[in-house]
Amino acid sequence: MDKIDQKSHLTVGVLGSGSFATAIVKMLTENCKVVHWCVRNEFVKGAIELRHHNPTYLTAVNFNVKNLAITTDVNELVSACDVIVLATPSIYLSASLDKMTCDYSGKIFVSAIKGIVPKVNDVVAHYLRNEFKIGFRNQAVIAGPCHAEEVAMERLSYLTIATVKENQQILLDLFSSHFIKVNSSTDILGNEYSAILKNIYAIGAGIASGLGYGDNFTAVFVTNAIREMEVFLEGIHETPRDVNESAYLGDLLVTAYSLFSRNRNLGNLIGKGYTVKSAIQSMNMIAEGYYAADSIFKTSRDNKMETPIIDAIYKILYEEKNAEKVFQKLTTVLN
Amino acid sequence: MDKIDQKSHLTVGVLGSGSFATAIVKMLTENCKVVHWCVRNEFVKGAIELRHHNPTYLTAVNFNVKNLAITTDVNELVSACDVIVLATPSIYLSASLDKMTCDYSGKIFVSAIKGIVPKVNDVVAHYLRNEFKIGFRNQAVIAGPCHAEEVAMERLSYLTIATVKENQQILLDLFSSHFIKVNSSTDILGNEYSAILKNIYAIGAGIASGLGYGDNFTAVFVTNAIREMEVFLEGIHETPRDVNESAYLGDLLVTAYSLFSRNRNLGNLIGKGYTVKSAIQSMNMIAEGYYAADSIFKTSRDNKMETPIIDAIYKILYEEKNAEKVFQKLTTVLN
Repeated sequence: MDKIDQKSHLTVGVLGSGSFATAIVKMLTENCKVVHWCVRNEFVKGAIELRHHNPTYLTAVNFNVKNLAITTDVNELVSACDVIVLATPSIYLSASLDKMTCDYSGKIFVSAIKGIVPKVNDVVAHYLRNEFKIGFRNQAVIAGPCHAEEVAMERLSYLTIATVKENQQILLDLFSSHFIKVNSSTDILGNEYSAILKNIYAIGAGIASGLGYGDNFTAVFVTNAIREMEVFLEGIHETPRDVNESAYLGDLLVTAYSLFSRNRNLGNLIGKGYTVKSAIQSMNMIAEGYYAADSIFKTSRDNKMETPIIDAIYKILYEEKNAEKVFQKLTTVLN
Repeated sequence: MDKIDQKSHLTVGVLGSGSFATAIVKMLTENCKVVHWCVRNEFVKGAIELRHHNPTYLTAVNFNVKNLAITTDVNELVSACDVIVLATPSIYLSASLDKMTCDYSGKIFVSAIKGIVPKVNDVVAHYLRNEFKIGFRNQAVIAGPCHAEEVAMERLSYLTIATVKENQQILLDLFSSHFIKVNSSTDILGNEYSAILKNIYAIGAGIASGLGYGDNFTAVFVTNAIREMEVFLEGIHETPRDVNESAYLGDLLVTAYSLFSRNRNLGNLIGKGYTVKSAIQSMNMIAEGYYAADSIFKTSRDNKMETPIIDAIYKILYEEKNAEKVFQKLTTVLN
């Protein structure tokens, strides 16, 4: 298995052992002789080393363990790597990074996280900059429509990597393969926010479906969502940007139309009449959009943005407003 | 059943007896005491009058026949009406309108047809203007994501009606109801072309699915399609237009993501390896996108537009090119 055509001489590592983290390790093993991987605990480490696959997520993906350097120590990971991909659920990120005591200057931190960091109620890009003094020159964001399950099957997927121009080729080389095409972007904040927003809109699409709205309405809902996303992103960070590119609209589509999306499922349960609390409990998984809705709503309000869909979903999730009534009102402002 | 709150004093008629025609008659009976309806033949006329529903399409929709004036004579329809909605499959339109000998000056012709008129290999708007001297002031186009089946169930749907400003309120009043919201537009050609293009792109989404591409790719394909549509529409008719409105993107979404779309199904069969001919024969239904692809490809070529998706689908449908190879090449220009 020495067939790897090593495109990069950088050392690369991944933090996280969920399905997207596992998919990213798979992508990177296409191009790197060794991928460093910081997993949750010794059990996961031992299981991968013994069975050559993640014991819980994307179990069908087999790794050549000679290509992996597995650790449970974030400092070991960061010290060993030039590029570190952050791929934990957003709520677990700070628990890992708070342990980081090693020197990480000059390294590139790539966020594959699509949610808000609860500790600071802000996006990862701001969290890294404000808490760790990691500037945008040392950051990147992975975006784009990318179900981990399809990466596992090597189905062709397009990622967008947003970073400063100097880093683009490096990261493009690291991730490109016969089943991954990489688009480059410089819109770090726009890509990060759009990945978060799409989870909130997917909750909305799920609520609509649960309430009995049909495909005609869903299409209208999504067209309004992408226009609202454009307004929001313009409000956050004005830059020439086409929201119809894959990272923005594509990611929204794959999430809002996927019956496997946790966020859409959460919305669906609420639309069917579950309370928010019971819907969350019954899922036993993390719907990033739920946590994000609170922070995003406040950002919208503080910046005086016109975002009726975000407002509606916030009211349902956090103010115990009746979903049917909120959506009835929302239908009058959509078009 | 005299509960109708008559919003319009215009007389209105519908040409066609397929599912979308039937859905439109249903919409109009919400607002008109009498809807004139020109159906295909005496059997259909007799069946509706006897059983109070279309014998073949949307059979669950019951009409109060007191509200219908059914005919099989296009001249009777046109003479009786101020507004005539054209809702036949595009290939049958000229067979009906060629019989039109009555005076139709001053009347408004509303096209609900989403295809090319084979006789002239052109869109309905041009066909009406060139063959019948019906100017754009007397035309309108109905667009937007609108499965007839969902209209039958009174699921909330948003139509866009494109016409000159003077006609907008009239048509809005005719079609709006508790389950139909109407957006107004002046982009007659853009709305008509977009409704046609989306069928071609739905064939493409079907081909991709048949070839084994997954949801990640479909999302990228659709984002590229909406951007290509924007290029095409700009080339046909430059006007301020947001392709992320419901009539453009919304209609593309409902068609490309619907498993019931004939166009998507045609593509799916081709992707799975059927020849184009056998795929068409096995469907026994009209996939408008097939006929449209020929005309649209030539329009694109003649206007020197850059439309790689349309070109790819044309090659597969009309030049017997191998779908797998064509799509492999297409994936290198998508992003």
